[in-house]
Amino acid sequence: MSIQRILSGMRPTGRLHLGHYTGALENWIAQQNLLHPDGSRAYETCFLIADYHSLTTSLDTSSLYAHSIDMLIDWLAAGVDPDKSPVFRQSQVKEHSELFLIFSMLVTTARLERNPTLKEQVRDLNMESLVYGHLGYPVLQAADILLYKGNVVPVGEDQIPHVEITREIARKFNSHYQHPELGDVFPEPSPKITKFARLVGLDGKAKMSKSLGNTILLSDGPDEVMKKMRPAVTDTLKVRRNDPGRPEVCLVFSYHQKFTGEAQLAEVEAGCRSGALGCVDCKKMCAANISAELAPILERRKHYEERPEMVKEILHEGETKARKIAGETMKEVREAMNLGESNA
Amino acid sequence: MSIQRILSGMRPTGRLHLGHYTGALENWIAQQNLLHPDGSRAYETCFLIADYHSLTTSLDTSSLYAHSIDMLIDWLAAGVDPDKSPVFRQSQVKEHSELFLIFSMLVTTARLERNPTLKEQVRDLNMESLVYGHLGYPVLQAADILLYKGNVVPVGEDQIPHVEITREIARKFNSHYQHPELGDVFPEPSPKITKFARLVGLDGKAKMSKSLGNTILLSDGPDEVMKKMRPAVTDTLKVRRNDPGRPEVCLVFSYHQKFTGEAQLAEVEAGCRSGALGCVDCKKMCAANISAELAPILERRKHYEERPEMVKEILHEGETKARKIAGETMKEVREAMNLGESNA
Ligand code: SF4
Ligand code: SF4
Repeated sequence: MSIQRILSGMRPTGRLHLGHYTGALENWIAQQNLLHPDGSRAYETCFLIADYHSLTTSLDTSSLYAHSIDMLIDWLAAGVDPDKSPVFRQSQVKEHSELFLIFSMLVTTARLERNPTLKEQVRDLNMESLVYGHLGYPVLQAADILLYKGNVVPVGEDQIPHVEITREIARKFNSHYQHPELGDVFPEPSPKITKFARLVGLDGKAKMSKSLGNTILLSDGPDEVMKKMRPAVTDTLKVRRNDPGRPEVCLVFSYHQKFTGEAQLAEVEAGCRSGALGCVDCKKMCAANISAELAPILERRKHYEERPEMVKEILHEGETKARKIAGETMKEVREAMNLGESNA
Repeated sequence: MSIQRILSGMRPTGRLHLGHYTGALENWIAQQNLLHPDGSRAYETCFLIADYHSLTTSLDTSSLYAHSIDMLIDWLAAGVDPDKSPVFRQSQVKEHSELFLIFSMLVTTARLERNPTLKEQVRDLNMESLVYGHLGYPVLQAADILLYKGNVVPVGEDQIPHVEITREIARKFNSHYQHPELGDVFPEPSPKITKFARLVGLDGKAKMSKSLGNTILLSDGPDEVMKKMRPAVTDTLKVRRNDPGRPEVCLVFSYHQKFTGEAQLAEVEAGCRSGALGCVDCKKMCAANISAELAPILERRKHYEERPEMVKEILHEGETKARKIAGETMKEVREAMNLGESNA
């Protein structure tokens, strides 16, 4: 059966939180493990540590490597299998920047300025200070995806415009340059609309974010989870233990919906509405369920944390694999562009 | 004595003309061969075939390689010595694009839009259609220069702003990233104002240019030179052979000034003014002097033309040398940026 390739990536922000898990990692791992009815893999998954991308928002790289390793350990702990999915850093596969340079010739600044995500980001900033590489973010993203000939890009509704730029660049390259044997070098990747379960922050803010300090980390043990859950604001109308509450306005209940089984979820909802369930007990149940989900992740994390050399080896093996794929694509690019003989 | 490194480059436009020679190549070769009083070299020269740069103005790459080889043969014929000066293509040294990507994070779009050369180029174009990579031209140029730690950049007066962007990027990198042993990774290259003898075109246009078809090629033999010289417009007031002429308004005289020895030059000037010298004879003398200057170039060109494998080998050797220097610089860049362990 046919196999499609998916390139997914994250900026190295260090230890991941539950929002990363429900918003991305869970999907990554499902895609990695999805099989066709005949037992063959549905997707070939590649996981990118987008360290160069993080330069668009901060030039401070002092923790970039440590954060990359920390994030990688979370990936592995959550179920990324390096035998199935190469893991690698953008900065270690030179071909990302080569293709970025070539693609930078295939898109106008006006097109990049129309990117709605960028518009959002610069609304708060002074547009005068927009960094050149920041404007080119979708160009680097196109290089990331197309270097591995990713033909499917899992995205949320709001990210479709990004994939559109990648598709335009692929089309433009193919229309200018044809490989003597292959014809088109690049696929036009299709966006695959994916439901990402957004988790609200512990402070009720729209999303978990490290900078807001409202997160539960994948590496938090049961005590830590409970400690973080305790001060969370619940339905403000449920003041005393036996007051009836409204689960639909309570962030704890939104976590229950994600981490609590159906039967217990119904009990929680009923108990909250009737007043039979107090917030303290409700939070304890919720924390316990989160920790149950995290338990195998914590265990695998410990395994990798105790073996830092093994983690590095996994990364370097992934980088070797990625370089091989990327090198083959760039060979085709050079041939299609007729860049001439090479002794590299 | 101290040695300084100079990176010079040209876009691969195919066979070069006299304007390239007097405007650049002559200087390159003088720099290559300049010695300190103790006999050591004053400059370490590196010569770049800027094939990626040419994408900023045309995406048609079908002749890029053939043009690169043709241009290289002219370089060698004019006196570029590959044992002294590595010659190499931008597209064959991946580190150019790596450093371009990193530098793209160190400069704002506003700064690049203020580039006067760009402004000139887009004055005729529709600014809406400015290509992203075109806006980043000075960033790639900074990468070209700094990858080889060029500390001197020979420029005409009008190109000083370009060097200024390179200096700013070097400063910005050094201020954000310090190498544990070296401190600053990059020099702040100084512009070295160089007089480039501009040659007017055979049609009297301000400069020789392939697209205007008003050039004498370095590869033109004596007959070709004379044939091109014959229809050139001279002083329009000198209609008949014996009319007195004004050398200062005659383009043929401007070539004499460049290619004719002092004594003969005085004769030509006097003869023109008095009417003793006719334009046909004057052109013959001028063509002969140009051809005398071109004779050794033509001879060396023939040598290389007959040995295409040798030319490729020279190029590949240059590219190997360039990769070595570039790889060392990028290693320092990675170390300064703390990008982490690598198995590359
Ligand atoms: S009982 Fe649970 S769901 Fe209801 S308000 Fe309290 S914490 Fe929220
Ligand atoms: S004699 Fe020579 S310098 Fe004088 S106008 Fe004729 S070509 Fe020009």
